[in-house]
Amino acid sequence: MRYSYVSHLLCPTCNKEYSTAHQQQLCACGSPLLVQYDLETLKHKLSPQDLIGREGSLWRYHELLPVECSEHVVSLGEGMTPLLSMPRLGEDMEISHLYMKDEGVIPTGTFKARGAAVGVSKAKELGVKELAMPTNGNAGAAWSLYAARAGIKATIVMPTDAPSITRKECVAADANLLLVNGLISDAGKIVGKAVKDGKLFDASTLKEPYRIEGKKTMGFEIAEQLHWKLPDVILYPTGGGVGLIGIYKALRELQELGWVTGKLPRLVAVQAEGCAPIVKAWEEGKAVSAFWESSSTIAFGINVPKALGDFLVLEALYATNGCAVAVKDDEILAELRTVASLEGTFVCPEGAAVFVAARQLRKDGWIGPDETVIALNTGAGIKYPNTIMADVPILQPDDEIDAVHHAK
Amino acid sequence: MRYSYVSHLLCPTCNKEYSTAHQQQLCACGSPLLVQYDLETLKHKLSPQDLIGREGSLWRYHELLPVECSEHVVSLGEGMTPLLSMPRLGEDMEISHLYMKDEGVIPTGTFKARGAAVGVSKAKELGVKELAMPTNGNAGAAWSLYAARAGIKATIVMPTDAPSITRKECVAADANLLLVNGLISDAGKIVGKAVKDGKLFDASTLKEPYRIEGKKTMGFEIAEQLHWKLPDVILYPTGGGVGLIGIYKALRELQELGWVTGKLPRLVAVQAEGCAPIVKAWEEGKAVSAFWESSSTIAFGINVPKALGDFLVLEALYATNGCAVAVKDDEILAELRTVASLEGTFVCPEGAAVFVAARQLRKDGWIGPDETVIALNTGAGIKYPNTIMADVPILQPDDEIDAVHHAK
Repeated sequence: MRYSYVSHLLCPTCNKEYSTAHQQQLCACGSPLLVQYDLETLKHKLSPQDLIGREGSLWRYHELLPVECSEHVVSLGEGMTPLLSMPRLGEDMEISHLYMKDEGVIPTGTFKARGAAVGVSKAKELGVKELAMPTNGNAGAAWSLYAARAGIKATIVMPTDAPSITRKECVAADANLLLVNGLISDAGKIVGKAVKDGKLFDASTLKEPYRIEGKKTMGFEIAEQLHWKLPDVILYPTGGGVGLIGIYKALRELQELGWVTGKLPRLVAVQAEGCAPIVKAWEEGKAVSAFWESSSTIAFGINVPKALGDFLVLEALYATNGCAVAVKDDEILAELRTVASLEGTFVCPEGAAVFVAARQLRKDGWIGPDETVIALNTGAGIKYPNTIMADVPILQPDDEIDAVHHAK
Repeated sequence: MRYSYVSHLLCPTCNKEYSTAHQQQLCACGSPLLVQYDLETLKHKLSPQDLIGREGSLWRYHELLPVECSEHVVSLGEGMTPLLSMPRLGEDMEISHLYMKDEGVIPTGTFKARGAAVGVSKAKELGVKELAMPTNGNAGAAWSLYAARAGIKATIVMPTDAPSITRKECVAADANLLLVNGLISDAGKIVGKAVKDGKLFDASTLKEPYRIEGKKTMGFEIAEQLHWKLPDVILYPTGGGVGLIGIYKALRELQELGWVTGKLPRLVAVQAEGCAPIVKAWEEGKAVSAFWESSSTIAFGINVPKALGDFLVLEALYATNGCAVAVKDDEILAELRTVASLEGTFVCPEGAAVFVAARQLRKDGWIGPDETVIALNTGAGIKYPNTIMADVPILQPDDEIDAVHHAK
């Protein structure tokens, strides 16, 4: 039994194939590459029952991941995050089967750990010694830490507005961190120039083909946690869009393996009104998005004015009869508190955005009252202290609190 | 098959018994109470093999937890945290089998989630509508969030110096939060006065008997993750000490069930030099500790000048031939960066303290080079941004970085 059934890299734009035995970035045509597996062979060798009792991490799906030798796996125990039922919030928005996939319960506190675990592992397998990437913060933090564990040197460029805790993570991991007075697209340009001489591996989103394989495991887990019965709707906060592309890829692989049947869930890309290029493109029925000028949102992880994989995101939305929704920043902040006070989960603003969208789509009738709906919370609220103001009374040691427990 | 094999509450000081069917606080004699199970019956009904394929949370051990009806379980998916091998750090400190149990990968980002999950679940089962507790931050955050999920109102009192993110968690959960210009012992006095009329359930550490049951699951998990072969040494950062008491209780329960055999691991209580009452008591061979005056440490979670369960901690150290070690704040901060840069794990200062102690005990020969050593990291580093200074160069969008990837 092989550890991985990876076969090759395929360009979704021009169909050119590449080997997975060498470091590879984009296709010669400029498109991102997608990893292919020998699913025809694997379907006769592996079944869902074989997964029972395997380790509670994303590596339980190692046959469907690109790392060929288990000793190259760089893991901090990531994956198999909780799929929580949200009955009180669901009642509040009249969705009777509402679930949250909580990607805050993962090393580094965001779903970026999945991409980093698989991306860094494959980079290690391919002999990468040094990598560079632009980031909105969390991916850079995750890649810094996984690279440290792998003994790979990381150079990270992030906007000055990125969540400040992510700087600390990069510095703790001893990465080479640089800030840019601009957006992730500006950070991308700086990295683009630095990697030109080929000495640095470019680990930018979708310019390396393997992080998507880590992120797709969210799709595997949702299916497994629902006992291989697919939900009706999956909502995802969409910046670079790799999570959504990954989930779509995973679900199609599961279909090919025969592990799931029936219609795929309708995928929903959630963006902020201040940065909604995918929403605009979807509304106009376009195949690609246009650069969003002067983008701005408190949900910083989805402040991505133009995603390299936009065409793959849009394809996933069209293919599943999904949609794209933009939400307001003030609604995000209000929803974040509603979610915490009703369900005890302190989500990140991107996660809160998804609940705003679910509420909106239910109100519009796009989501039916008895549909099974999965909201992706992509990170822990504790990485975003600024979403909550805490103006709290201060007591002295001898003070008492009264019957309603306020300071006397 | 019963969901829980809980039998009664037992006072470890005067042996008085209490029912688990009613709300209970301390024993009439003033001692904390410990939960007892019908292990004699259970050992014929359950074996380690039965756990295979169960959910990846602490509820996989529900027979050994006090909640009697599964519908009272209040869960955010806590438990089965990663047990990571730490080969590069181990090499650095000459311990060939060094592992870290990473309690940062859990809802709310610290091991306090375990106590809150089981404590709040049992409180719900017993009809508690409102609770109050003093906290050094993280326990209050966890109890606020789990109480919110249970529909229980929480009043939380914490020192102004507690990690500021924990305030935000309490406020997000809509708890009634109060700060005190003092220590956790001062917060405890304020809560003590507020609960006197009996309308508020006192959820203070060890004044309610059930959080220890949640924390003991760390012991179950370590044993299960090591395939029921016990390690030689377990190091734990010790403030209130409930984690260590819980692990000791778990290991003894596993012995009684016959799931583990041989010597128990030597338990090590790690404290900061600025607050080391357990270390002092252990060095003097005492059964209880004395209040530590003017305590101070950057590892705020272990700034507990006098723990109610000190005698149980000391008993566990003596019974396992363990020890107690105090470490310096500046060594904690240095070790935290060593751990992150060698292993990719960004730990909390309390977790870093444990690695300082392991290094020290290895140097002294107390830990042998081939022993299996488990270090408990009790929380995520991302909750402690102040442990890392990030003084980073800022680029403009058109800047370039040079061959060594620093700003030109």
